[in-house]
Amino acid sequence: METVLLEDHSLRDGLQAEARILRLEDKLALFRLLAEAGFRQIQAASFVDPRVIPQMAQSEELIRSVLRDFPEVAVSALVLNARGLSRARACGVRHLSLSSSASDWHSRRNVGRSAAEAFDELLRMIGEARASGFAVQAGIQCAFGCVHEGPIPEERVAAMAKSLAEAGAPEINLADTTGMANPLLVRRLIRKVQEAAGETPLALHLHDTRGLGIANLLAAWECGVRRFDVSAGGLGGCPFVEGAAGNVAAEDVVHLFEQLGVATGIDLSRLCRAVRRYEELLGRRLPGRVCRVLATGVLGN
Amino acid sequence: METVLLEDHSLRDGLQAEARILRLEDKLALFRLLAEAGFRQIQAASFVDPRVIPQMAQSEELIRSVLRDFPEVAVSALVLNARGLSRARACGVRHLSLSSSASDWHSRRNVGRSAAEAFDELLRMIGEARASGFAVQAGIQCAFGCVHEGPIPEERVAAMAKSLAEAGAPEINLADTTGMANPLLVRRLIRKVQEAAGETPLALHLHDTRGLGIANLLAAWECGVRRFDVSAGGLGGCPFVEGAAGNVAAEDVVHLFEQLGVATGIDLSRLCRAVRRYEELLGRRLPGRVCRVLATGVLGN
Repeated sequence: METVLLEDHSLRDGLQAEARILRLEDKLALFRLLAEAGFRQIQAASFVDPRVIPQMAQSEELIRSVLRDFPEVAVSALVLNARGLSRARACGVRHLSLSSSASDWHSRRNVGRSAAEAFDELLRMIGEARASGFAVQAGIQCAFGCVHEGPIPEERVAAMAKSLAEAGAPEINLADTTGMANPLLVRRLIRKVQEAAGETPLALHLHDTRGLGIANLLAAWECGVRRFDVSAGGLGGCPFVEGAAGNVAAEDVVHLFEQLGVATGIDLSRLCRAVRRYEELLGRRLPGRVCRVLATGVLGN
Repeated sequence: METVLLEDHSLRDGLQAEARILRLEDKLALFRLLAEAGFRQIQAASFVDPRVIPQMAQSEELIRSVLRDFPEVAVSALVLNARGLSRARACGVRHLSLSSSASDWHSRRNVGRSAAEAFDELLRMIGEARASGFAVQAGIQCAFGCVHEGPIPEERVAAMAKSLAEAGAPEINLADTTGMANPLLVRRLIRKVQEAAGETPLALHLHDTRGLGIANLLAAWECGVRRFDVSAGGLGGCPFVEGAAGNVAAEDVVHLFEQLGVATGIDLSRLCRAVRRYEELLGRRLPGRVCRVLATGVLGN
């Protein structure tokens, strides 16, 4: 049976734009629900400035706690600069997501540096993190477009991927930060990146801003991508990209792969417990579909 | 440039399960917004028992009015039995959607007859409607699954399609009434139906119950289907299928085809006026994504 690896990002990308700051104990309970649903890769926090992203102020405590309580889960954290890398090292996390943006406008807005400067720092950090024994995934934000710059030249993304592979990145994540990908672009860009980055495996991080998230994911799967970031309930959005919606909903992706006969290792009804808990804590319905269907008992085949 | 034909179903399938009954003048204003957005095919009503579907009680008045005011639009109505056919004839509508279900359970629940009886009546009605000069589209409900019966044998759907083609149906609509399709099933079933029904063009009616609507639509497009039912805002659901969500959102489908370089004839910003009007009248946000993005001015490329 074919398998796919899903990494849940609801605690990091999902929560970072939420005005309601969740308590540490609630985040820990959510992590437990995600782990019990079967996730073996969970991105739990980012080491960014808590004055900018207040939801991430408890990253150290959260990471230390889940590293202790869930040895079976690969806990990852997002790091965007050297300060974040030293915080990550201090709290013992072993899996790092390091990334920079293909859009200069987005990079300046997100990290206050040009895309070229941020990419240089990314390459340095990859070397440093690998030398320190971290498991590293290197990411390219806005790989499929920027709301300000528009389409991003595919050659630029391919060249970045080539440099990341040459810098020793064991895996490259293409992020559709703005939800501007479409299935044809996904196929085209993945082929170009595969040519540029050789055997380095790809992962995709897809936002569902324009309703194309699942179609893009399927297009990538059919191009051989076997690792995707998802978010329970479809929670999320980028605080610096207006109108950005959440990642593809974990439960809808799990259901899709069940229909395709692909094993995810995730138990749908357990995953829906996490989604319901998010909805209770945040006081609103989340956009994912399948938990609502499961609740009526009519998921069908 | 390639083209695709989208028929909006928000006034019929979209509204039929809504508890809030819209006034005739509001429905007429919505029809006008849809026509101004560029729709040249609009399903405006169904001739069903208004005691069962109160939202459709004004079907005659609505149809007569839009036939008079919008000669450029092909106005269609859904008809499920002989009584509906005679009401359609009386009010002058020229485009009929006639259908029955591939699921016996769903047919008994929806029209109080077995699937076999309803299909026999469908074949009779196709002949009668064509003899009366109606433009007819023949539909197969629950073609991709039934929440009670589970998967529907593909051979059953193909055999129904063959009979419909032999009965002279100029077009066959496969309806995913329960949102149980997935892209692999879509490809498989469309190929089987194309083999069975020869040159008869196919249309698809997709519900987004499990978040796969757009991915299913793209799969069908890549199999050569060039006509789809959509619903402004993603409004809708079947009153007899618990947990059923609306049709694929018209605006998200239009945006997808724009990205693929396929002409729909629909103006997105005008379409969003219709979606906003639905949201005002119904007092809630609809699930379609693209109008929310357009409202923030960051649709991008």
